[in-house]
Amino acid sequence: MAGYSTYIELIRPMIEGKTIISTGMTQEVKRVEAAIEQALNARSCAIISSGDPGIYAMAGLVFETCKLKNIAIAPPASGSQDGTAETTLEVEVVPGIPALSAGAALLGAPLTHDFAAVSLSDLLTPWEIIEQRLEAAAGADFVIVLYNPKSKKRSWQLERAQQILLKYRDGQTPVGIVVSAMRDRQRVRIVALQELHREYVDMQTTVFIGSSASSRYLNFMVTPRGYAKKYEI
Amino acid sequence: MAGYSTYIELIRPMIEGKTIISTGMTQEVKRVEAAIEQALNARSCAIISSGDPGIYAMAGLVFETCKLKNIAIAPPASGSQDGTAETTLEVEVVPGIPALSAGAALLGAPLTHDFAAVSLSDLLTPWEIIEQRLEAAAGADFVIVLYNPKSKKRSWQLERAQQILLKYRDGQTPVGIVVSAMRDRQRVRIVALQELHREYVDMQTTVFIGSSASSRYLNFMVTPRGYAKKYEI
Repeated sequence: MAGYSTYIELIRPMIEGKTIISTGMTQEVKRVEAAIEQALNARSCAIISSGDPGIYAMAGLVFETCKLKNIAIAPPASGSQDGTAETTLEVEVVPGIPALSAGAALLGAPLTHDFAAVSLSDLLTPWEIIEQRLEAAAGADFVIVLYNPKSKKRSWQLERAQQILLKYRDGQTPVGIVVSAMRDRQRVRIVALQELHREYVDMQTTVFIGSSASSRYLNFMVTPRGYAKKYEI
Repeated sequence: MAGYSTYIELIRPMIEGKTIISTGMTQEVKRVEAAIEQALNARSCAIISSGDPGIYAMAGLVFETCKLKNIAIAPPASGSQDGTAETTLEVEVVPGIPALSAGAALLGAPLTHDFAAVSLSDLLTPWEIIEQRLEAAAGADFVIVLYNPKSKKRSWQLERAQQILLKYRDGQTPVGIVVSAMRDRQRVRIVALQELHREYVDMQTTVFIGSSASSRYLNFMVTPRGYAKKYEI
């Protein structure tokens, strides 16, 4: 069992008696290497993430590490069927509810039409690529879900993103801000795009930028299913 | 309890004794109206979807219908706090695991970096808007998840999308095709973008188009977490 120490603590009562590899925030690579080592030696190891492990999370690093170290891996249950060698490591990704789903559910229904997910973290991606994606997604009228909008060290990216989005979207466009979805500190707000820079946003926050079709109804943010008016309500 | 008849059948053993509003594929509007009517009269009604009800699914239509009919709604548990009128309907969206998460988990880790979700259904959206979004997402190097890629009546859209994507992506770009994720008829394949038009795809299929950074490793499709090489494995 391996994971970021915060997430390990969340499930501590469920993992009594297990060997635990718990590391801090920036130790992802070491943690995954230790988990793979453990799986190769002990025949099994679970790596936990919050939300969905496949969306901006740990699943990718597991595969990247196995590829780089040339470790033979296969999906579960394929072993016995096609005579996979016993040295082959089975890797199973168990999907979860991603932050974009949890946040959308709390806001209403902002993602019932096309959307793009963009991380504002420029730790592993050059900022120019992030800007280019924001421009493209805004220009094509996608609803945009911003992951990693702000941290203590990354303070200016969200306001820069807001400026880019305001070139394409009306200042009154609804923006949903969900902090710590489904956890103790949960906060849900819907504001106008032009006010986004005044709002509290942190590393546990997901930000939903409406498309031109999104609107607010009472305390909910909604994107209609389509653009044509083919159906009559 | 309301739902598309196929989904109602999937949970039939769990809903014994409930009043059931079961309607066919194109009856979404009627179904939601009946469910809201039921909730207003009987004080509660659940509408079921497959995957996540908030992603290309029924949640949006519930809010659209309430807005159009001017029905007062509020998030759950807000009633007692702010003195909401007793006539206010509480609406709660329960998130689920969307097809993009289930499919990604079966493929490996295609969504560990920025991605866009685009529906190829032109029933409620003009095809020109869909093309524009495909161009924008392909040009900005998003991984692209195609929802509703093909149906009996919509047979040419996927091949047209493939042609657009091939203007921006190499023909060898990995494409994941997941049919009926986590259900009986499940099929998972990874092919080259230039071969996509030869593959079996139906309404229960989700298609994952890799970015320029995505690659195939053994039987998995993987997108690395970032573009910069700041970390050493």
